Amino acid sequence: MSRVYRFFAAELNNEDLEMDVCLSPRCEQKIFNQLVRVLRVKNCDKVILVGDGGLEFEFETISAHNKIIELRFMSKKKNENELGFKLGLIVCLPNKPDKLTMILQKAVELGASDLILVNGAFSQMKHDLKEERLLRIMKEAAEQSERAMIPRLMIKKKLIVLLESDWCAKKYKNIFVAMEREDGKGLYRVLKGDSENDGGENKSIYILVGPEGGFSEDEKRLIKQKGLKTYSLGKRILRMETAAIVSLGIAVCGNN
Amino acid sequence: MSRVYRFFAAELNNEDLEMDVCLSPRCEQKIFNQLVRVLRVKNCDKVILVGDGGLEFEFETISAHNKIIELRFMSKKKNENELGFKLGLIVCLPNKPDKLTMILQKAVELGASDLILVNGAFSQMKHDLKEERLLRIMKEAAEQSERAMIPRLMIKKKLIVLLESDWCAKKYKNIFVAMEREDGKGLYRVLKGDSENDGGENKSIYILVGPEGGFSEDEKRLIKQKGLKTYSLGKRILRMETAAIVSLGIAVCGNN
Repeated sequence: MSRVYRFFAAELNNEDLEMDVCLSPRCEQKIFNQLVRVLRVKNCDKVILVGDGGLEFEFETISAHNKIIELRFMSKKKNENELGFKLGLIVCLPNKPDKLTMILQKAVELGASDLILVNGAFSQMKHDLKEERLLRIMKEAAEQSERAMIPRLMIKKKLIVLLESDWCAKKYKNIFVAMEREDGKGLYRVLKGDSENDGGENKSIYILVGPEGGFSEDEKRLIKQKGLKTYSLGKRILRMETAAIVSLGIAVCGNN
Repeated sequence: MSRVYRFFAAELNNEDLEMDVCLSPRCEQKIFNQLVRVLRVKNCDKVILVGDGGLEFEFETISAHNKIIELRFMSKKKNENELGFKLGLIVCLPNKPDKLTMILQKAVELGASDLILVNGAFSQMKHDLKEERLLRIMKEAAEQSERAMIPRLMIKKKLIVLLESDWCAKKYKNIFVAMEREDGKGLYRVLKGDSENDGGENKSIYILVGPEGGFSEDEKRLIKQKGLKTYSLGKRILRMETAAIVSLGIAVCGNN
């Protein structure tokens, strides 16, 4: 049985991908090692290399050994798996690295285009933010979920500072905040109302989720003052990673 | 600062909870150990014991040491955090125990009342199903998310057998199946259409999610033959745990 492998081919240009390709351990080190040493690619296995602009180039493996992988070009097509709108997640740093991993992985799968990490007043992260590791997790999730691109990762400082920034000021009306113990509308209704007011053209949605301890009084005041819309995810107390995943899920699928 | 702890009090009857209570390491071993040894409860900390029927009894700690915890009865109220309908998750066993843990934990948080584990044809679980551990995770998730009850856990054999069973036959029209790479309607629309046909009285929803490899041809045939409704979660390929969590999230919150 031939298998299918999928990679983002940052090392190669689209022009180089529209023909037979030889991958060498020197030039295309990461893909080469992954294919030969980790996945043990075999003849006839399919390899999909995703180039710039979400173009997918499909190859068949002709030969693969320690020195070179020969790939025969089969076809190209455009990846159509991206969302029709911009979806961002602004998430306050959780207390444990595996929660952060889970949030980033699921956000990428669900189609988010921007992942913004901030320090909430009640964030209790005592571990290092290993950016390289986070980017690797996001890349793998994008490959596995068959996306056309790897989302952007931004690491900002304090939530309060972010909310006061120019970057944020342009987005106030597109930021939706998950609020615990709030007897408010659900996200689906908030987004629906918003898109109706907007003439149905909701071009970007940012979801903001606080850390385990929720938002501080200062943060809540600023959220209110800046006019961000809040929503509830029901009466039960959700863990912050659950709130983030479910919110993105509703933003992506809730309307279909 | 006084803290609040919450436990299901299976060891105690509702009648015994409507007055001051002394917990001893011999009679109420689990709660006692948790409070004294793990959480190091202090005077003035609040303890909420959840009794039968979701009645919550709130206490203030008078004294706590190695031999006894004295709790002063403060008030009782009914927990109103349960969903207004029955929500079940039928999930094929994933390949790794931590995925199963995550699915059960999140399903409990989101309000599921029934969790049914089955072996899909493509399930690749090679670890033991430690039922006691799973029940503990569910109990902790129910306490943390402030639910009135601990959901039921059912461990069934094969998905094919379950689908043919009498248990399932009564539920065919209430089972909704997550289908990958299907260009179908989303869950929100499927549920909405269903509840409209049903006069809006959708009294139970069961979500069925396959294992990592998806459903086998036999399973798909049976799903179709029994008339189960299928839905899509978008164009990207979601991991099965993401599909389970997001589906439950939409069933719970998608309509609000």
